[in-house]
Amino acid sequence: MLITFEGIDASGKSTQLRLLREYLFGKGKKVLLVREPGGVDVSEKIRALLLDNKNSISPASELLLFSASRSELMHRVVMPALQEGKLVLMDRFYDSTTAYQGYGRGLDLDVIAAINRIASFNIQPSLTVYLDLLPEDALMRKFSEKSLPLSFGKEEQPLDRMESSGLEFYRRVRAGYKHLLVQHPHRFIEIDALKSITEIHQEIVAALKSRGLFITAP
Amino acid sequence: MLITFEGIDASGKSTQLRLLREYLFGKGKKVLLVREPGGVDVSEKIRALLLDNKNSISPASELLLFSASRSELMHRVVMPALQEGKLVLMDRFYDSTTAYQGYGRGLDLDVIAAINRIASFNIQPSLTVYLDLLPEDALMRKFSEKSLPLSFGKEEQPLDRMESSGLEFYRRVRAGYKHLLVQHPHRFIEIDALKSITEIHQEIVAALKSRGLFITAP
Repeated sequence: MLITFEGIDASGKSTQLRLLREYLFGKGKKVLLVREPGGVDVSEKIRALLLDNKNSISPASELLLFSASRSELMHRVVMPALQEGKLVLMDRFYDSTTAYQGYGRGLDLDVIAAINRIASFNIQPSLTVYLDLLPEDALMRKFSEKSLPLSFGKEEQPLDRMESSGLEFYRRVRAGYKHLLVQHPHRFIEIDALKSITEIHQEIVAALKSRGLFITAP
Repeated sequence: MLITFEGIDASGKSTQLRLLREYLFGKGKKVLLVREPGGVDVSEKIRALLLDNKNSISPASELLLFSASRSELMHRVVMPALQEGKLVLMDRFYDSTTAYQGYGRGLDLDVIAAINRIASFNIQPSLTVYLDLLPEDALMRKFSEKSLPLSFGKEEQPLDRMESSGLEFYRRVRAGYKHLLVQHPHRFIEIDALKSITEIHQEIVAALKSRGLFITAP
């Protein structure tokens, strides 16, 4: 079983993923948590290429690089884990590609769908948790994390290439996620990312329970 | 105008490309010669990833990485050169992807066609020169170049990841090129790579002339 987490940066995906992993461990589940892009050696190298501000990368290449990274992660890590009966939690999956490269960068959605299929080996998540956050709120969170002008006394860290794409870009990405929610109402759940960490965690666990996603598993 | 060269490794593409470039320079043409994968910074990094034996890369990732490299090369180098009115010669283009990843590795040809379109920005070559060589003959050429068991006294160089794919793989690649020739009879010319360097060069120049490909250019 595959559960994916989606949302713009700073929506709290990583925190919730760690909490859910702990919860599932506590229930005796075998869980694997992976993040995109990255996770295996080749994919980590691709991740480094993508996040490096010095490499100016065209949208089409960005799409293809993310997809190459995903394909490798699926082939080497996710598919073997699923075959062993593990529950796999993914920090981003192909919905990110549709939202970021499709709606965000404006690449053809049909082409993206075709590439998503090949890169994911046609594997679909059982559940996708979308943490909804306004780009303005995301920026506030990131600025406070990174100690950019809004805070003092810490060393400044520059925005990486993805972060520096601007508010308008993130508005399109968020609109893309909203489209995906409408297209896949059974697969997605949407949670307001401004809720407390505990509240969000409880909503996620409730969603898992209501779908019977881990009643049947050993 | 875009002219691409195709064929399995050791078919003599690079030699013929250099000869043609010299010839066209001599006629006063503005010519740019590029090779795939590579040609720009990001693409060279991807090339290094692809050719590194230590990275075991799945066929789908290989397809996506080659395409990312192509997309970047097109965006930064080939398209600007074509817009400046240059004649661009390419050492491999998307036909390589169809032949190697499609026919060679067995990936879905429709998916490859879709990815080829996005990575090439829908740009098609005016002429594709295919140098036909049996894989057995290619291997003989490579072994003598690399001083593998067939020769002595030089340091041995290991086969790179692409080369070590084996004869059966190259037979499928060659069959793929043959299919492409049938599908695109007007775009392709086929030349026997065992002919002499001079003969092959003359056939290429004759093909360019008979197609009027550089009568009209300044």
